Amino acid sequence: MFSQETYITRREKLRKKFKTGILLFLGNTEAPMNYPSNTYKYRQDSNFLYFFGLDHPGLAAVMDIEAGTDCIYGDDYTLDDIIWMGPQPTITDMAKNIGVVSVHPLKELATTINSALKHGRKIHFLPPYRANSILQLSNLMGIHPNFIKSYTSEKLIKATISLRSIKEECEIAEIEKACNVGYQMHVASMKMAKPGVFEREIAGHIEGIALGGGGMVSFPVILSQHGETLHNHNHADKLEAGRLMVTDAGAESEMHYASDFTRTIPVGGKFSKKQKEIYDIVLAANNRAIEIAKPGITYQSVHLESARVITQGLKDLGLMKGDVDEAVRNGAHAMFFPHGLGHMMGLDVHDMEDLGENYVGYDDEVSRIDQFGTAYLRLGRRLEPGFVLTVEPGIYFIPALIDQWKSEKINASFINYDKVEEYRDFGGIRIEDDLLITDKGARLLGKKRIPVTTEEIEEVMNS
Amino acid sequence: MFSQETYITRREKLRKKFKTGILLFLGNTEAPMNYPSNTYKYRQDSNFLYFFGLDHPGLAAVMDIEAGTDCIYGDDYTLDDIIWMGPQPTITDMAKNIGVVSVHPLKELATTINSALKHGRKIHFLPPYRANSILQLSNLMGIHPNFIKSYTSEKLIKATISLRSIKEECEIAEIEKACNVGYQMHVASMKMAKPGVFEREIAGHIEGIALGGGGMVSFPVILSQHGETLHNHNHADKLEAGRLMVTDAGAESEMHYASDFTRTIPVGGKFSKKQKEIYDIVLAANNRAIEIAKPGITYQSVHLESARVITQGLKDLGLMKGDVDEAVRNGAHAMFFPHGLGHMMGLDVHDMEDLGENYVGYDDEVSRIDQFGTAYLRLGRRLEPGFVLTVEPGIYFIPALIDQWKSEKINASFINYDKVEEYRDFGGIRIEDDLLITDKGARLLGKKRIPVTTEEIEEVMNS
Repeated sequence: MFSQETYITRREKLRKKFKTGILLFLGNTEAPMNYPSNTYKYRQDSNFLYFFGLDHPGLAAVMDIEAGTDCIYGDDYTLDDIIWMGPQPTITDMAKNIGVVSVHPLKELATTINSALKHGRKIHFLPPYRANSILQLSNLMGIHPNFIKSYTSEKLIKATISLRSIKEECEIAEIEKACNVGYQMHVASMKMAKPGVFEREIAGHIEGIALGGGGMVSFPVILSQHGETLHNHNHADKLEAGRLMVTDAGAESEMHYASDFTRTIPVGGKFSKKQKEIYDIVLAANNRAIEIAKPGITYQSVHLESARVITQGLKDLGLMKGDVDEAVRNGAHAMFFPHGLGHMMGLDVHDMEDLGENYVGYDDEVSRIDQFGTAYLRLGRRLEPGFVLTVEPGIYFIPALIDQWKSEKINASFINYDKVEEYRDFGGIRIEDDLLITDKGARLLGKKRIPVTTEEIEEVMNS
Repeated sequence: MFSQETYITRREKLRKKFKTGILLFLGNTEAPMNYPSNTYKYRQDSNFLYFFGLDHPGLAAVMDIEAGTDCIYGDDYTLDDIIWMGPQPTITDMAKNIGVVSVHPLKELATTINSALKHGRKIHFLPPYRANSILQLSNLMGIHPNFIKSYTSEKLIKATISLRSIKEECEIAEIEKACNVGYQMHVASMKMAKPGVFEREIAGHIEGIALGGGGMVSFPVILSQHGETLHNHNHADKLEAGRLMVTDAGAESEMHYASDFTRTIPVGGKFSKKQKEIYDIVLAANNRAIEIAKPGITYQSVHLESARVITQGLKDLGLMKGDVDEAVRNGAHAMFFPHGLGHMMGLDVHDMEDLGENYVGYDDEVSRIDQFGTAYLRLGRRLEPGFVLTVEPGIYFIPALIDQWKSEKINASFINYDKVEEYRDFGGIRIEDDLLITDKGARLLGKKRIPVTTEEIEEVMNS
């Protein structure tokens, strides 16, 4: 937990953005796997963590703007619970650590909300993403569950995003802890990637490293020698020498700050010439993005610059053709690079995605480009000091996509489809690092960069 | 997936128990961690797996008793999904593998249910344990979410339990796979338990082994040098030489059958005399239960017999006193052994707990004993061939419980409270194995028993 001051200050900043009303925050409950008491590893809601820091199930919080009060609602453990779970601090004790002195049983929350409703007060709440929160809000507010999302508060969404977007020093330190666990995960993955090993053995082992680090994975591990499948959570394959294995994985720190890295490595420990050529284009796109990212530049333009590096590289190899700028304007690169360059990262690996991607990544000035590929860019707006984001260009040869574009002659003036056929079974390459926007530029997060050049990777794999 | 015949036969057996009505089964959806698209590892509903075998999110199934039809409802992936997720089989193809030929888009489920409701037909469904299923049922049935549980079908609950209680050969083979992964987890835990290691490092590593085995953990790992805390999911401690470390952990096979084992080991690799004395009592209680478990005996009586072994052992050490049978009748053993001997195990680690513990573990003949300790026994009824269950006696010194009983002089004629004080910081010991009831007796599940005598454990820890 951060200092009491941290939470008090955050709530003060939030409070100043409102003149009236009630801000209602529901913490997460336990999430059952296959019966009520068999639950997944508990994950508190990130907004609740940000403003109230208490990492326990079954809590709620209310900020009353006019009264100037902050209350926590929740029920203490009973003696029976303590026999099974060991001694537990009271909620009152925990609440003191985050500067809240007013603590009430959970059942009183309904009374508070009901009274506010009767007085015609506005109750601000954030969009729920778990069905349990929808039910809880429905019962508190008297709104049909199917309509709860229509009653979320845009004002609270925007206020929360404006605060959470700029990472504090203490948050950056937590993200770096997660990055350091991510480093261990990726180096372990490189060392284990021998022919004959099953993907799930490596995926399991590195998830174990994340758990051993005190948190959990920040998202389900993506690990596959079919890297052309961008979000492949299937780990059934046995590794074959000569294939490229993509590992996209990160950890949460104990305080639930995320890291998110991708490395692509050659099973067996040696990149082929063909693999190294494509790899070096992706790495150049990644390095170029890191080089130019700084306050004041839009991430949309950084994305497009990395697309140009990719296009130029593919053109040099004869896979693309024509004018590079024109190709990128036409979205021709997106057959190879069909996703965005990156996203904000913090308490969530796609930070604040529950609050709405467009609120987080775009604004009045920069809006989402509606073109295949770039349309998936989660973060487009102008960068500010304190932003933390990912840089993750990639080049993939996706048979289903190639066939579709080729048959429809999409961007045929920029793509050498005959040459592309030679790469049909190539797989995919993605390289991802985590970046902090500083006052003047940007710096990579983590104690040191995870081995990233083909030489560094081969050295780790063969050591 | 098992053979097509397996699923067809199960559904035929279920169908025969009904004369009329609709049986509605909702599969599980993805479960979000901290925003909608960041989900926990997917876990299908066990009842859905049992009757329909399809391990994918977003499905539902309907058995129409009068019409004699089985239908699957669900939506195929789109080309966009396939770019991100790779080629996917159609639901129609998957459904064929389980002998269902009738497949419809998910939105048609509402039409089917609505039409059945209009015709006044009974719709049987099982108790939902995820809020998302409650919402889905509420929308389908037009029942307020808070009342959904009151509309569950006792007839379908009992029919399902009667089938799932008797494990088929193919299920036993799956459970044994999970047991073999459990073996690896526990041996790894023993080898890692050196002073100075953090509990979470071991817990993370063995969860990684479960994931690497193709499934996941069957329940959140319990691993603690405070074994007196029965369900301790906190892994923050650094191991200290001389303490006892309890590891209660199991895996799921790829098909989601569970294992569940507990071992207790001395940090540093050597049991003290005091630890060995208590350990050997728990092991004797475990072995005695395995010895007498067979068809026809109630598990309640096996539980009480293991309580007698524990009481006799503690009496021999001077911790208890008086007549052993009388002590057990009075529940005096429960200060040391405050939980049940075990539970059914199968597709769920506490098998079918979502359907109601009393339906699963008790019946018209054997009802739950309402006495502290034995009241927690999940399985009491007469054993039958094909039952799979856990055997997990324990002895704990729980300071909060000791203080409460001592101050209230509970069972003071059977407990030497002065002597107990000498064990106040002892911790706890639990030993758990998985047992199949055979035609004539019982056999332990798994290729071989996880090292269990103090000599075997010390050998593993020091090898």
